[in-house]
Amino acid sequence: MRIRAPRRGALRVGCVRFILDFFAPLNETPVTHATLLVDCQDRTGLVAALSDFVFRNDGNIVDLDQHSEPDTGRFFMRLVWDTARFRLDRAGIRAALGVMAQAYDLRWRLHFADERPRLAVFATKAPHCLYDLLLAHSLGELAGDIAVVVANHPDLGPVAAHFDVPFVHIPAGDKAASEARQRAVLAEHGVTVAVLARYMQILSPAFVADWEHRIINIHHSFLPAFVGAKPYHQARERGVKIIGATAHYVTADLDQGPIIEQAVARVSHRDGVEDLQRKGRELERQVLTRAVRLHLQHRVLVHGNRTVVFDG
Amino acid sequence: MRIRAPRRGALRVGCVRFILDFFAPLNETPVTHATLLVDCQDRTGLVAALSDFVFRNDGNIVDLDQHSEPDTGRFFMRLVWDTARFRLDRAGIRAALGVMAQAYDLRWRLHFADERPRLAVFATKAPHCLYDLLLAHSLGELAGDIAVVVANHPDLGPVAAHFDVPFVHIPAGDKAASEARQRAVLAEHGVTVAVLARYMQILSPAFVADWEHRIINIHHSFLPAFVGAKPYHQARERGVKIIGATAHYVTADLDQGPIIEQAVARVSHRDGVEDLQRKGRELERQVLTRAVRLHLQHRVLVHGNRTVVFDG
Amino acid sequence: MRIRAPRRGALRVGCVRFILDFFAPLNETPVTHATLLVDCQDRTGLVAALSDFVFRNDGNIVDLDQHSEPDTGRFFMRLVWDTARFRLDRAGIRAALGVMAQAYDLRWRLHFADERPRLAVFATKAPHCLYDLLLAHSLGELAGDIAVVVANHPDLGPVAAHFDVPFVHIPAGDKAASEARQRAVLAEHGVTVAVLARYMQILSPAFVADWEHRIINIHHSFLPAFVGAKPYHQARERGVKIIGATAHYVTADLDQGPIIEQAVARVSHRDGVEDLQRKGRELERQVLTRAVRLHLQHRVLVHGNRTVVFDG
Amino acid sequence: MRIRAPRRGALRVGCVRFILDFFAPLNETPVTHATLLVDCQDRTGLVAALSDFVFRNDGNIVDLDQHSEPDTGRFFMRLVWDTARFRLDRAGIRAALGVMAQAYDLRWRLHFADERPRLAVFATKAPHCLYDLLLAHSLGELAGDIAVVVANHPDLGPVAAHFDVPFVHIPAGDKAASEARQRAVLAEHGVTVAVLARYMQILSPAFVADWEHRIINIHHSFLPAFVGAKPYHQARERGVKIIGATAHYVTADLDQGPIIEQAVARVSHRDGVEDLQRKGRELERQVLTRAVRLHLQHRVLVHGNRTVVFDG
Repeated sequence: MRIRAPRRGALRVGCVRFILDFFAPLNETPVTHATLLVDCQDRTGLVAALSDFVFRNDGNIVDLDQHSEPDTGRFFMRLVWDTARFRLDRAGIRAALGVMAQAYDLRWRLHFADERPRLAVFATKAPHCLYDLLLAHSLGELAGDIAVVVANHPDLGPVAAHFDVPFVHIPAGDKAASEARQRAVLAEHGVTVAVLARYMQILSPAFVADWEHRIINIHHSFLPAFVGAKPYHQARERGVKIIGATAHYVTADLDQGPIIEQAVARVSHRDGVEDLQRKGRELERQVLTRAVRLHLQHRVLVHGNRTVVFDG
Repeated sequence: MRIRAPRRGALRVGCVRFILDFFAPLNETPVTHATLLVDCQDRTGLVAALSDFVFRNDGNIVDLDQHSEPDTGRFFMRLVWDTARFRLDRAGIRAALGVMAQAYDLRWRLHFADERPRLAVFATKAPHCLYDLLLAHSLGELAGDIAVVVANHPDLGPVAAHFDVPFVHIPAGDKAASEARQRAVLAEHGVTVAVLARYMQILSPAFVADWEHRIINIHHSFLPAFVGAKPYHQARERGVKIIGATAHYVTADLDQGPIIEQAVARVSHRDGVEDLQRKGRELERQVLTRAVRLHLQHRVLVHGNRTVVFDG
Repeated sequence: MRIRAPRRGALRVGCVRFILDFFAPLNETPVTHATLLVDCQDRTGLVAALSDFVFRNDGNIVDLDQHSEPDTGRFFMRLVWDTARFRLDRAGIRAALGVMAQAYDLRWRLHFADERPRLAVFATKAPHCLYDLLLAHSLGELAGDIAVVVANHPDLGPVAAHFDVPFVHIPAGDKAASEARQRAVLAEHGVTVAVLARYMQILSPAFVADWEHRIINIHHSFLPAFVGAKPYHQARERGVKIIGATAHYVTADLDQGPIIEQAVARVSHRDGVEDLQRKGRELERQVLTRAVRLHLQHRVLVHGNRTVVFDG
Repeated sequence: MRIRAPRRGALRVGCVRFILDFFAPLNETPVTHATLLVDCQDRTGLVAALSDFVFRNDGNIVDLDQHSEPDTGRFFMRLVWDTARFRLDRAGIRAALGVMAQAYDLRWRLHFADERPRLAVFATKAPHCLYDLLLAHSLGELAGDIAVVVANHPDLGPVAAHFDVPFVHIPAGDKAASEARQRAVLAEHGVTVAVLARYMQILSPAFVADWEHRIINIHHSFLPAFVGAKPYHQARERGVKIIGATAHYVTADLDQGPIIEQAVARVSHRDGVEDLQRKGRELERQVLTRAVRLHLQHRVLVHGNRTVVFDG
């Protein structure tokens, strides 16, 4: 039980510090945050242990959201703290969390606010989702950077150029060659998250496996309704009164991955397929950009085929 | 072309009347309305012919909603007129419409505001949809009357009694016997519309066929997602971020009938199955009562497996 | 009663044509439409007279939406017909409608689908609404053309350039001079509709009067809540759980003009003013673009300080 | 610093327990919960101190939601723990929290799941909100009990009777006498929360002050739009495209209290005042019942004139 010794030691320090800091003013505009996502089987003391770890190292918790599922006994937590005066450096934090993770059998991810994720946006010809992401980025609405746009057609090059983002045209052609090229581009640009913005190609199972929970797709229906091709035609055919769009992580099973975000819009008999497509475009971009925002803020935890989204 | 003669004749009358009535004040609170629903292949002159028919017989159109589907070439119309000073009696109107229907190959239905449809509500044990319908009725929100509540369990008897509506308990038991009893009850109460308010029995194909487009069911999911049993469990399992409810006409194919109305609500990872069921109950009653209201206002036309809903 | 003679004459012709055309197939993809908007005190025969006018001149009505307000006795109608084989030319149609308008005391507007309205978008520095309009336009979603972008700052020039739309920078400075310049630009570009896309200047009463019901503004609140400056700050202060955006015609009274469209989004205590602004931007662009689309499709009638929106 | 001694002592115990319990299974269906709401100026160590307090007394945290407002530096927390094996009894918990509250200058409230709040519903003649609350209660959807219905008219007596809830008719008449009677009824029934379900009387400032943040009202508009009388008439007059309803705590300023929940519905020009009222009734009951549910689950904290709602 390795955690015992550091814990007890730290607590002594903590108690001393407690006296000193008790009336210390809150650091009101922290410039540096760490976000910890934790996921494990629930047991008593998890919140206390993790919040105490932050406290006794002089971190101030600014946001904590924790949930235990009664039916599965699963524990999920998102903890954000101000690291401005934290005693441990990043390696130290990781080491300490590693020890606790072993003790408690935690799955965890740690993110620092100044280590901004780098995105690749994959597109084909439809521009609306790409514009929305690039605009959100340029308005400072995303906690990450769009490093490159990859497309299997050249049409959207000028859009990327307008926003000063590199554009790489990789024609579909030979599957293996394109994938190798894609992987090279992602590596070259330091990409950690791929966003499929109405990208009309299917990624290989190997690629999907390597990028598990790091590829976000937009499907133009309210999943699980209307999987597969031409969902607006399907919706028109079925006569639904509401259509939707779904952002999800890509898995080997098409349109079956964990859902991050969904939105809907009312339609009527007056809406032909073209109207559904237009209304759908509005939904697609909203939903995809929101899902990307949530992912970049480290608000999404995947458990099985479901997500826990600690949204603001 | 039988329509020619009456049309021309009526127009002469119409022109005379035109002069006389030109500055006549609008009858502002008409107590008697007729609602005509029409559905046919589109051809020129339909609106003119029908509105002229109303006009030259001294009816005043108070609401007209017409739509032609570009892709199918199908024409749909809902026409409401004030019959306070109409020249033709009800039989005369039906006769005239019959002639026009033959000429134009129309499907049509005609309803008079004072001939209120009579409903049977079918229920089992869940009270929420039943309460909602009975309350809406007692508040004067429905253009029809709840004539009887039919249930395969006795539990909801006091609810019906509270609203002074007859309650008939028909245990599920022998299928043929219960159906015979149901048919007898509907006949006895002059019922023209059946509403399945979380009724947990399946109606026979013969019954469904006899009551085509006159049985309204509420399904507790956003169809076509989660057909069949336990949709909230399915929704929880799939991890959707939005749940829904769907009111539809019952057809021989379970959960496949023409959709009248749908609504949705956001859910999160914090919502267990019980929470989904609670949020769902709120949706189910809203959606079912709205669908019943639309049906009773003669706003719903069925074409194939889709509905045209001329909602206010 | 001038209308009588042409009416009777036309009807004779109409009856002949009636026989000939009766089984003529519907012209399924009409390329030319006329849209008539009518607004008057209700009297009997209006729909019949107007639809008959279309019919006897060989027009086919493809969409008709009519509503009479019971409380005010006001009649509103939107009538769209296919003019492919219409007997009258545009001047002829206008002349005939002029006669009917006098007889019935109608207010009316007539629009032909190939006479596309030309828009000026007024902006300052915020790009989101401008992008949305330009993107909608480039996707063919608007029934009109963005002729020019006018801004009191140069910042958005590259956005207009990216979409190949002329950009005119008119610094705020001298009020009279800028307004004169604005009027000249609008005239030069044949503009008929002005859209204020988060334009941070107030137009003069004279300008507003000259462009009555032809200037569309987006206000970043759910009007009439939070009129005036800094509505997101006001919303945060009041602790509302839902924020909104409102598109309206500009009148002399700030934020008081007839409302065309509104939308809302949920917010929570976690949303600071910046979050409200971000969520608000998403609403503002949606609502403004929808309002512009509705206006360009000639779906909006103004009566007093309210609009009738015949939306699809 | 009184908190130091118990803290250190408890921690020694905690460390021992830590070893013993480490792999103890989660108590999966805790029957007893405590909910702590805390509100104070933020300082470091708050979450650690409070979660550690729970941990070292053998409580298991099942839900924790914490938020610090960057702009005001205010800290809000809702902490739910399983008390099945808790070392302290209720008096002990309150004593310990009292000590911590002094040290940290906390505002706090503590609730035990088996101490169900008792509600009085105040009504006049409109039944819809009352039915909704009574039905929700009878379906087990509320974490509290409806102890009594108080009305200034006798009409709703049968509704209360149907749900087996005592009904007290207190005619409006003499203000002082009715208020005295109301206070007596609340005392007699052990009421801790009053819900105004379309209650058409104004409570006295003294009454409101005595029941601060314990009276929930439903206002039939989207506040702050349309304060005061006849909001649906106001909405119709202003021509809004969306209407709403707002549940809020009652304060001395009419319609100005802290907002708990809001919802909206689309309306169109076809909706007369009666339609707005009907759509509004659907909103009012939803919003009021949701607000009551949130309050009874101890999810609502008031700070100034705003609420923090930790909703599920």
